[in-house]
Amino acid sequence: MDSGRLEAFSDGVFAVAITLLALNLAVPGPGHGPLTRQLTDHWPSFAAYLVSFLTIGIIWVNHHTLFKNVARIDRVLLFLNLLMLFFVVAIPFATATIAAYLGHGAADAPLAAVVYQGVFEGMSLSFGVLFYWSIWRKHLKIALTPSAARAAAIRFGAGNIAYLVAIGVAFLSAPASLLISGLVAAYYVFEHIPARPGEAQPGTA
Amino acid sequence: MDSGRLEAFSDGVFAVAITLLALNLAVPGPGHGPLTRQLTDHWPSFAAYLVSFLTIGIIWVNHHTLFKNVARIDRVLLFLNLLMLFFVVAIPFATATIAAYLGHGAADAPLAAVVYQGVFEGMSLSFGVLFYWSIWRKHLKIALTPSAARAAAIRFGAGNIAYLVAIGVAFLSAPASLLISGLVAAYYVFEHIPARPGEAQPGTA
Amino acid sequence: MDSGRLEAFSDGVFAVAITLLALNLAVPGPGHGPLTRQLTDHWPSFAAYLVSFLTIGIIWVNHHTLFKNVARIDRVLLFLNLLMLFFVVAIPFATATIAAYLGHGAADAPLAAVVYQGVFEGMSLSFGVLFYWSIWRKHLKIALTPSAARAAAIRFGAGNIAYLVAIGVAFLSAPASLLISGLVAAYYVFEHIPARPGEAQPGTA
Amino acid sequence: MDSGRLEAFSDGVFAVAITLLALNLAVPGPGHGPLTRQLTDHWPSFAAYLVSFLTIGIIWVNHHTLFKNVARIDRVLLFLNLLMLFFVVAIPFATATIAAYLGHGAADAPLAAVVYQGVFEGMSLSFGVLFYWSIWRKHLKIALTPSAARAAAIRFGAGNIAYLVAIGVAFLSAPASLLISGLVAAYYVFEHIPARPGEAQPGTA
Repeated sequence: MDSGRLEAFSDGVFAVAITLLALNLAVPGPGHGPLTRQLTDHWPSFAAYLVSFLTIGIIWVNHHTLFKNVARIDRVLLFLNLLMLFFVVAIPFATATIAAYLGHGAADAPLAAVVYQGVFEGMSLSFGVLFYWSIWRKHLKIALTPSAARAAAIRFGAGNIAYLVAIGVAFLSAPASLLISGLVAAYYVFEHIPARPGEAQPGTA
Repeated sequence: MDSGRLEAFSDGVFAVAITLLALNLAVPGPGHGPLTRQLTDHWPSFAAYLVSFLTIGIIWVNHHTLFKNVARIDRVLLFLNLLMLFFVVAIPFATATIAAYLGHGAADAPLAAVVYQGVFEGMSLSFGVLFYWSIWRKHLKIALTPSAARAAAIRFGAGNIAYLVAIGVAFLSAPASLLISGLVAAYYVFEHIPARPGEAQPGTA
Repeated sequence: MDSGRLEAFSDGVFAVAITLLALNLAVPGPGHGPLTRQLTDHWPSFAAYLVSFLTIGIIWVNHHTLFKNVARIDRVLLFLNLLMLFFVVAIPFATATIAAYLGHGAADAPLAAVVYQGVFEGMSLSFGVLFYWSIWRKHLKIALTPSAARAAAIRFGAGNIAYLVAIGVAFLSAPASLLISGLVAAYYVFEHIPARPGEAQPGTA
Repeated sequence: MDSGRLEAFSDGVFAVAITLLALNLAVPGPGHGPLTRQLTDHWPSFAAYLVSFLTIGIIWVNHHTLFKNVARIDRVLLFLNLLMLFFVVAIPFATATIAAYLGHGAADAPLAAVVYQGVFEGMSLSFGVLFYWSIWRKHLKIALTPSAARAAAIRFGAGNIAYLVAIGVAFLSAPASLLISGLVAAYYVFEHIPARPGEAQPGTA
């Protein structure tokens, strides 16, 4: 079973989820005060859009990088992939929730941020399981070298721990928590999880 | 006529429908009581999201499994596929309806659950017709062995009867009915409809 | 320039448009009267959903049938395809409009139906231009036989005239007009526009 | 790393964004005055839909034309493509904003138009960077001839300057600014950015 259709379906879900993020950018419109103020008051939506867009973008890039090296898929992989998509699909909801509370609901902003980071942690963990399943079941076209596998483990660990930290920080400050997930996304723009041998060295691919 | 574009179009519809499910997760937001209560009161939306996501996921996996083994398609198959998608597209609507009534509309919850299960039954029946058309018109790359065909018939029958039962139970209890369709989805995660010879034994693929 | 990406993009648009149709099925929900009455009062939405779903489905099938036989595309074809998609994208809007007025706005229902049928006519005409451009510029893999070309011309003509009639009828009766476009869609389920030689005889493909 | 999945994901985003544009066409419906007046009062939405549809259509055509000639992609290209999609995804929001203010918010219409044209400028600039990165890193299958590269530079420059002008004009007149971006789109229908040698001469492809 090759991975073509798994990738096509996943790409569809990634594309729809990333595009739905922008639905949340809508401002109230004429009759609700000057547009300048509407746009500036709306900063949490723009900030959350930026972080969520980057996060979905990164997970897409990692998904793409992984499946280039996956030779065949099994039913477990199909369902692990669905599990990951379950969290991806929830991102527009989580984004809208944190955006709504960052600006207006001081008391509830921490909970909204916990929901947001929890969805990211779920996505990140399920992607990790997907990744290790592919290695463990030897589904990769080219096996990872020990150093590439070690580098992948470190980076996965880093991402998952960062989201756990973001959940913890959320209880103290929702904006700080949003910032952390923004930094995680920025980190993965420059560092990537190796999915082929020889990709262990940062910056070579 | 090969099945590439039928699969691409279907994947698009599956992906959009599964992602639109999450639109229904939105909570009222600031000014409508504590977020904790908003989220807990919203349990029917989360439960219905879970069941509908799994159900669309399963039908996608079965569709994928079937079309891997379909050598060519005819016009009838295109329209049977459209018929199945007709029900898939209606799932976000049916999900929103059952979610709205599970929590707040005791008197109407059974009808909402009947609509929900009816859409699932329609999807399941039309997928069954699609499957048998492919076998009957000998469109499969590799014919099913008699035992694989028998196993498929049993599993299709089981799924369709389960949705009929869920429709019946809906008149008595909407949550119980939702639970049944959740169990059907969970069952198909572990059991799959054989679409190739040698797949009749549970657990081999 | 091969047609792979034109088809992928078009499939995406078809898939999103056909799935967005269902957004319009949403009933008001708890607190707006019994669900039975909400659903029955909502018949125009269900009827319009059915007709629009079938119409998008048919145009997708015709698009698919045509592009199987298109050997290469040029820039004009890309833009003719965009023109057709311009109308496809407008179908969910037109569907929502006719559905809103069929039941509640007697005085304005004819105008709503004219908008609806006008979008269908635009889609149908631009698909026709696309089709004839492919023949005229000899972009087809296998040229149509004269009888296939004649059969295609008759069927295109029939479709376009039927939509013109539906526009005319819309001024008299919006439901009758909706019925006509439903019958056009049903007709194309059984009859198809030949896009390969030997497909001129109805029922052979 | 081939460009297949980058194209599939981008096509998904383009398709969803272009289809979501139509959500903004919805009129208030029965009980909000005659439909004729609702539709005519709604002209800014139709005008903005037309311009945004064409603009996304054009960028898709250019993306398609470029990637036909891209032999391989690197991580930088993946992220430059994501940057461009970041602006594409924002187009439905920007379109809804300018449409809302063109008709009703005289005082704020300029700002709405600046947002709209700013999103287009962002998209156009990031596409330009994507294009030059492909040339500079020699990722093209067939290198551009000097004259093709010069023609591309002129056309990119023209587009980017036109959007800058549209931003400037927005401060004076939002409708005039919308007209300019409509003309830019119309211009690119007939002129295209060369992405292969021998495409430098206008009108040859």
